Amino acid sequence: MTQTTSQSESNWLAPEELDAARERLPILYIDAIPVRVDVHGQITSVGLLLRATGEGRITRALVSGRVLYQERVRAALLRHLEKDLGPLALPRVPLSPAPFTVAEYFPTPGVTPFHDPRQHAVSLAYVVPVEGDCEPQQDALELTWFSPAEAREESLHAEMAGGQGLLLQQGLASVGC
Amino acid sequence: MTQTTSQSESNWLAPEELDAARERLPILYIDAIPVRVDVHGQITSVGLLLRATGEGRITRALVSGRVLYQERVRAALLRHLEKDLGPLALPRVPLSPAPFTVAEYFPTPGVTPFHDPRQHAVSLAYVVPVEGDCEPQQDALELTWFSPAEAREESLHAEMAGGQGLLLQQGLASVGC
Amino acid sequence: MTQTTSQSESNWLAPEELDAARERLPILYIDAIPVRVDVHGQITSVGLLLRATGEGRITRALVSGRVLYQERVRAALLRHLEKDLGPLALPRVPLSPAPFTVAEYFPTPGVTPFHDPRQHAVSLAYVVPVEGDCEPQQDALELTWFSPAEAREESLHAEMAGGQGLLLQQGLASVGC
Amino acid sequence: MTQTTSQSESNWLAPEELDAARERLPILYIDAIPVRVDVHGQITSVGLLLRATGEGRITRALVSGRVLYQERVRAALLRHLEKDLGPLALPRVPLSPAPFTVAEYFPTPGVTPFHDPRQHAVSLAYVVPVEGDCEPQQDALELTWFSPAEAREESLHAEMAGGQGLLLQQGLASVGC
Repeated sequence: MTQTTSQSESNWLAPEELDAARERLPILYIDAIPVRVDVHGQITSVGLLLRATGEGRITRALVSGRVLYQERVRAALLRHLEKDLGPLALPRVPLSPAPFTVAEYFPTPGVTPFHDPRQHAVSLAYVVPVEGDCEPQQDALELTWFSPAEAREESLHAEMAGGQGLLLQQGLASVGC
Repeated sequence: MTQTTSQSESNWLAPEELDAARERLPILYIDAIPVRVDVHGQITSVGLLLRATGEGRITRALVSGRVLYQERVRAALLRHLEKDLGPLALPRVPLSPAPFTVAEYFPTPGVTPFHDPRQHAVSLAYVVPVEGDCEPQQDALELTWFSPAEAREESLHAEMAGGQGLLLQQGLASVGC
Repeated sequence: MTQTTSQSESNWLAPEELDAARERLPILYIDAIPVRVDVHGQITSVGLLLRATGEGRITRALVSGRVLYQERVRAALLRHLEKDLGPLALPRVPLSPAPFTVAEYFPTPGVTPFHDPRQHAVSLAYVVPVEGDCEPQQDALELTWFSPAEAREESLHAEMAGGQGLLLQQGLASVGC
Repeated sequence: MTQTTSQSESNWLAPEELDAARERLPILYIDAIPVRVDVHGQITSVGLLLRATGEGRITRALVSGRVLYQERVRAALLRHLEKDLGPLALPRVPLSPAPFTVAEYFPTPGVTPFHDPRQHAVSLAYVVPVEGDCEPQQDALELTWFSPAEAREESLHAEMAGGQGLLLQQGLASVGC
């Protein structure tokens, strides 16, 4: 999970305050798996971002980020999808507020399959069809579309950090892929 | 649940054969709740059909019908939505094959909240956004759009047969309405 | 949603720090609907707590509370169920981490159906069978078991605060009640 | 998916009638993944049956079977679990009637990931904790318990027929394994 401190977020919490909170509270996140679907609701491709981590490693990543104070989960989903895929991505936010799973990223590795060295993040994970044009934004180097078969490959999951490969697999399983 | 024996269905099972099967096997159905949604994935209206039953009673009804031999559940959903709402309805079939509930319509009333005097039907129920123009077709007299608040009213559920009022309520609850 | 600042929680966040965080971040909660089930997995009764609110009002309430730093959601569920129902309640924590819904309690009424004047709480909601002896603990005055039919009554929901009546209804709908 | 024509089933449909129906209608099935869970609701082991197929091949299999006329899905789950694991298995039937997925077994291979040469079976799939003593019954040669890690191995899935390896994987993903 990557996160940028944007202008709008700084209205809610100064960076040093967020750092303090991160050492004391679980932080609420969303994770989104962007997909293309056909008219039968079948997934035709799965989008993954290419990012450079703080340590200069290149990883594949889901769309993810923090839910802000007084922000609806749905609004956070839309905001992060737009932030990463651009304003023309036209995501179809799921009808149901229930995520396909809850990923618990712990600062200590091994407690759960999910790990975030910066914080204890609890993330609501959704599969989100996007219908428009996607362009990687901000700190994403690239957006790559994979076939459902490719997206199930363990070699691809190995390029993902923090357990997101498993999360991708769980998301694909939840939609029958 | 209403059903018409269309030309295409007769390729699979003659009416008298279907009648015999209906006395011996659970018959697989789908139920769909057509909805309009806004850009945040929030439901803005819920569509119900107005139908005349065999006994001349007028009822509100969901889109529902049988799954045919060698037909995918998704294809059955699309076929029945198109049959009842017209070819321009543009339904967004759900990504996940898992229904929000399974409605067990028993021929004997009272076994479950769902009842179908003709058969034991087991129905996979979905909430389905439609994006195009809907026109009631065939034996549907009318398609009426209700606000989510109206769709939760018990007086409306009382106009629905076979327990579909409860099914509507369960579907709305599943999407946080 | 009620909450007590117990000894163990103070290890994580001092009350004044929690107050500050509550004005800046969504706080992660769980809500649990305790139920009794028969051998077929059908709900036979639904448990609600009777509580006195800070303002001296008496309300019916679900089991709910905060997820702590470095605490698993499952552990938080168990902890709050034990805190409210006693150590012999024997709750069966759900297998799936996915809640039946996510209740977004806003400090401003009307943004969502859920309201918490103290904070923006995002709550993962579960239906949890309990098999042992339940005894209300701490600030709960009483635990009352209702039949599923009674638990669906709007008059009962009117005795619940913050939108928990709706949450109860959504939970019952999710298990086919 | 294997199935035995037991005494009780013959009350509903004679074998030759069932054969005829199987060529004309989708047949409703259940699939169950028996699991052992700890007090936190985490899966500690997954049970698979060892069976000899009609062609003399040995395969690993889930508990599965037909839903009968006028039988509740829950009753079918209990009946098949008892039939395969014995009367002392003490399965905890899920509260929710919604399966984690719907497996569509087609008689033609390749239409879906699931295949049953005898019929078009549509199966509601559940993960079911069992708390008692399990003894393989009838045509099951053995019941073997695997760790969650073993149960995710592709080599194990390769020993399963009809796509049940994928179904097992989807079931484990649905509970966060």
